[in-house]
Amino acid sequence: MRHPLNIAVAGLGTVGSGIVRLLAENAKALERRCGRRLNLVAVSARDREKDRGVDLSGVRWFDDPVKMAKSPSVDVVVELIGGANGPALAVVEAAIKAGRPVVTANKALLAHHGTELAMAAERKGVQLAFEAAVAGGIPIIKALREGLAGNKVSRVYGILNGTCNYILTEMRRTGRDFGEVLKEAQDKGYAEADPSFDVDGIDAAHKLAVLSAVAFGSRVNFKAVHVEGIRHISALDIAFADELGFRIKLLGLAARREDGIEQRVHPCLVRLGTPIAHVEGVFNAVVAEGDFVGQAVFQGRGAGQGPTASAVASDLVDIARGVSVPTFSVPAKALDSARAVPMTRHTGAYYIRLMVTDRPGVIADVTAAFRDQKISLESMLQRARDPKEAVPVVLVTHETRESSMRRALAKIAALDTVQEPPRVIRIEEP
Amino acid sequence: MRHPLNIAVAGLGTVGSGIVRLLAENAKALERRCGRRLNLVAVSARDREKDRGVDLSGVRWFDDPVKMAKSPSVDVVVELIGGANGPALAVVEAAIKAGRPVVTANKALLAHHGTELAMAAERKGVQLAFEAAVAGGIPIIKALREGLAGNKVSRVYGILNGTCNYILTEMRRTGRDFGEVLKEAQDKGYAEADPSFDVDGIDAAHKLAVLSAVAFGSRVNFKAVHVEGIRHISALDIAFADELGFRIKLLGLAARREDGIEQRVHPCLVRLGTPIAHVEGVFNAVVAEGDFVGQAVFQGRGAGQGPTASAVASDLVDIARGVSVPTFSVPAKALDSARAVPMTRHTGAYYIRLMVTDRPGVIADVTAAFRDQKISLESMLQRARDPKEAVPVVLVTHETRESSMRRALAKIAALDTVQEPPRVIRIEEP
Repeated sequence: MRHPLNIAVAGLGTVGSGIVRLLAENAKALERRCGRRLNLVAVSARDREKDRGVDLSGVRWFDDPVKMAKSPSVDVVVELIGGANGPALAVVEAAIKAGRPVVTANKALLAHHGTELAMAAERKGVQLAFEAAVAGGIPIIKALREGLAGNKVSRVYGILNGTCNYILTEMRRTGRDFGEVLKEAQDKGYAEADPSFDVDGIDAAHKLAVLSAVAFGSRVNFKAVHVEGIRHISALDIAFADELGFRIKLLGLAARREDGIEQRVHPCLVRLGTPIAHVEGVFNAVVAEGDFVGQAVFQGRGAGQGPTASAVASDLVDIARGVSVPTFSVPAKALDSARAVPMTRHTGAYYIRLMVTDRPGVIADVTAAFRDQKISLESMLQRARDPKEAVPVVLVTHETRESSMRRALAKIAALDTVQEPPRVIRIEEP
Repeated sequence: MRHPLNIAVAGLGTVGSGIVRLLAENAKALERRCGRRLNLVAVSARDREKDRGVDLSGVRWFDDPVKMAKSPSVDVVVELIGGANGPALAVVEAAIKAGRPVVTANKALLAHHGTELAMAAERKGVQLAFEAAVAGGIPIIKALREGLAGNKVSRVYGILNGTCNYILTEMRRTGRDFGEVLKEAQDKGYAEADPSFDVDGIDAAHKLAVLSAVAFGSRVNFKAVHVEGIRHISALDIAFADELGFRIKLLGLAARREDGIEQRVHPCLVRLGTPIAHVEGVFNAVVAEGDFVGQAVFQGRGAGQGPTASAVASDLVDIARGVSVPTFSVPAKALDSARAVPMTRHTGAYYIRLMVTDRPGVIADVTAAFRDQKISLESMLQRARDPKEAVPVVLVTHETRESSMRRALAKIAALDTVQEPPRVIRIEEP
């Protein structure tokens, strides 16, 4: 039996309380697996008096998490404060500097400082572990960094934000519009009072930047992620997608291409029958494509106390067992600085919905704009006919380049028969 | 840069050739990830002259794989010979005895000798790694042993045999019967000439015994697995299942119960809409349920050269990186000897199809037999009516105990209006 692993937790919100609970409830199982005890020895949070429903007796309280991170009685620091900078960054930097491994669930921190922190940690010979930062309880970081390490990964993508997936699922199930469902999600606690981080795709983009670094062994490049959220998705588009045999999902996608790495977060049409199309509600899923394994799909709860605590615990188990692998799958100083492929060079099929005045020649004008950009159409839907009001026309294209699509759409948007800005959703093939 | 990891491969069939190819094609990526080269230095197979489409120049050939396993020029031995005993066992034992880590894809070997081999390996301080033994390219062993190590696992189950899943999928898609589809699968190379290992559930049972040991930290107990195959599944049952909103899948299930561990392999009705119901063809999927993570689902190719080589490579990467964790998630000498729960104590809902003479009183007799065992019915389907021929009657029960069900069925089978032995398929709820 080796000496216990002494754990300090900074931040006692939902996830922090969760890991405290897990370490207590599963203490015996963890000890069997690690051959040593996992001891919570110190915590730090803003409010010492708050009742968190967990037993902290015998645990040392620190008002200053940075001081805690430097304390010699601590073997590993768990950072659950959140935020890309401020105290979270200070705690992680202090712990690494003091030669202590760090476990964090903080995707914003990693998206902004991941490469530098990994370099610092590896110089000190300590782990920087972050299974909980991406896709909650799904052990996708370990899968990419270790389980699929024999492969050259060509693409990794998934549903990385449970709030958006919940909203899109509810919109489809009930036929209601975005605003109404968002309000309900907020009331239920599935969405924040300020929902922007989730619904505008930023949270998914943070996670994608981390996932992409691990999958491709490249430096974290959050700035290169093309980000669109789900605010403009309407009940009408969800209904049309359904009719065409698709679901609308907010996906984060990273792909290695000849000219660099493409990273993008935006709503996608995914074909019914593909695994990702059937992942509903607050669930997350990640698909990884490797040259030998083919497609592997990982699915589970993407957030919440239990799943996130499970991920934090798996990192603690690794540390207790002495498992140490390169932070982003290759040593930080050897990470590629892969070129970022701009969104204009993206190629794919597109779903376009126009609201047009129903009069002769409209379709001819629209299709001419596509023809001029050498974009060919796969199908067209026009349901209602109404000479007085704008009617929806839905077009699905074959594969084309984003730049050509943008030129065609600029022309179409300028037609006086087109009443609203065209709605465009990219189609993602498996 | 540390010295290269010198690899010896015993067995050059499909998987063996696959790992040779992977080590060559992905040599650079592996070196980046491991900080050292992964060198194939020796191979052994039966026929030296056979063209396997892989380059073995510069690789030492051994006629005797056991001699190879002991060779001082070898750092790790990959066993891909197959079979529970014979040369496979000899090679693994010799390698461990010589203090060399072992990577194997051999589920039969592990199902029969897993605990003892793990003890021997851990005594010597070397890894016994077997990601490729269960669910092909899906890194499920690592997920259970490490990624979900913070959880108490209550249940793990999945589609563990691609051949059976392919046959069941084709039967449903085409409406054809088992024999016909099996023949086709054999012609296509998806099933062996002697299909028994696959279609009678033995292969899935081997994998389940291994999965169960890792999930529950218990000794491998293959003998305790209740095993039924898919030979008796008919096109008629598949059609009825479909009508009732189910798919028929061969599942391997292991669950921790108060009175021990239940392990069983048999066809199941799984509800449409659950992830497992939509896993088709040669794909595998495993669902793990933990107290903190909830349900996590892992899906991918369960067999074949590429996926299996991917899994073998992930173990080699672990070894090259110096990652070493307990073989079955807890040290072998501390594995539980969990009590095996006999199948008669299983509880669940049941699908029963009878072929009955269509005359008054039949249903009364049948339902009386259920009533006498306190089994309540959820639904009943009777499609055709024909006074001359036997007609199918399908019953779905609420949850009951297997022993009660067996008593009721014995009584029903003895009715002279019941023309064939009742067909029973257990219903598995998510």
